[in-house]
Amino acid sequence: MNLVLLFEEDFVGPDRVMLRGRRARHVIDVHRVSAGDELTVGVAGGGIGRGVVIRLDAEAVEMSVSLDRDPPLPLPLTLVLALPRPKVLNRVVAAATSMGIKQLYLVNAWRVEKSYWHSPRLSEDNLLLQRILGLEQGRDTILPRIELRRLFRPFVENELPAIVSGTRALVAHPPAPAPAPRTVPGPVTLAIGPEGGFIDAEIASLERIGFEPVSLGERVLRVETAVAAMVGRLF
Amino acid sequence: MNLVLLFEEDFVGPDRVMLRGRRARHVIDVHRVSAGDELTVGVAGGGIGRGVVIRLDAEAVEMSVSLDRDPPLPLPLTLVLALPRPKVLNRVVAAATSMGIKQLYLVNAWRVEKSYWHSPRLSEDNLLLQRILGLEQGRDTILPRIELRRLFRPFVENELPAIVSGTRALVAHPPAPAPAPRTVPGPVTLAIGPEGGFIDAEIASLERIGFEPVSLGERVLRVETAVAAMVGRLF
Repeated sequence: MNLVLLFEEDFVGPDRVMLRGRRARHVIDVHRVSAGDELTVGVAGGGIGRGVVIRLDAEAVEMSVSLDRDPPLPLPLTLVLALPRPKVLNRVVAAATSMGIKQLYLVNAWRVEKSYWHSPRLSEDNLLLQRILGLEQGRDTILPRIELRRLFRPFVENELPAIVSGTRALVAHPPAPAPAPRTVPGPVTLAIGPEGGFIDAEIASLERIGFEPVSLGERVLRVETAVAAMVGRLF
Repeated sequence: MNLVLLFEEDFVGPDRVMLRGRRARHVIDVHRVSAGDELTVGVAGGGIGRGVVIRLDAEAVEMSVSLDRDPPLPLPLTLVLALPRPKVLNRVVAAATSMGIKQLYLVNAWRVEKSYWHSPRLSEDNLLLQRILGLEQGRDTILPRIELRRLFRPFVENELPAIVSGTRALVAHPPAPAPAPRTVPGPVTLAIGPEGGFIDAEIASLERIGFEPVSLGERVLRVETAVAAMVGRLF
């Protein structure tokens, strides 16, 4: 936890917070804080600063907080991701959040197994937790938005054209002859397919609305590796 | 499994292999092959080609194989990684392998917890399995070498200078003012610290033998995200 993310309900005074539950346990067990110790804190949707531990017991940590700077700038990237396997979902959401992605669409695709859509990991609570973990990792305070789209074609035809408007739209496609570009100056919409990739008809649908298929080389990467490699390359 | 990695002991004839165990089960349960189906195969340390399923039962798959091409070129990157938490180790080794890294040093650092060195995940068998999974993911056949170095200072002073010789040596260090370079033409040695980073004395030791501290931005990334982002950026 590189930053303790605070929410309105944590405040017990204008500059005083009381942590309980997961964050308190982490601060106590992993950071092993004592009274007087300082931690980096941030308020969800707001600034970043320092928290000084005032007192703690086995279950709660009280801190005095002062905010003195803005969170990092958002990454100008909208990620359109074929819904990954539940096992991978948590890691991808947290990693994308830690890198500063603020808009994530989880979409269906031909090679997405139907059962993935029934995973309890798609619950609002879990998706919120993974994003909080990502912000705590990346020292950020702005929660990304996540949208689920269970129908590929209506999403691509009716909604995605407005999303890609004004952005450079790229779809990661290992067989594509064009290499992924470097240092794109403006905003990007990046689509990444499921294990096994988007099928040709899906690539064609994406191309029709302006996506360029690009490759990161002949190696096939896991989705979380591909997302990080593309972000490292583009920004 | 984007490639079935074959070993000498799998061969039951000059171009005939018999798979058992994990690979057979994966091919049967996940790929759901039948006789006549084709799979991408590669021979450890050798070429890539096709395997045609000749027959299968509940536990074994027999294939006729023909190799027709070389594996992808290695990534010209030596990775020096502070030993990550056991939970993360498998993913990092597999991901680094999938991206084509062929030389990986797992080293101690001040902020590496001593207990990590006793993890069963550091066993030869497990490290081999994770590299095989990485090759199967990235469609490659060349196993990377992994070396464990439990003493940071002797490694950095006595061994690392020869490793970095002729390469551009970079150490990922979020507070560094210099951004990570892009598209380095020659080979690179990349050092990545533990959670919480290398301490100043370790950064200084690395600088003395030619490492440049570079940053990927103010966000703090998990080790597997940082490795992928750096690879995406550098190559």
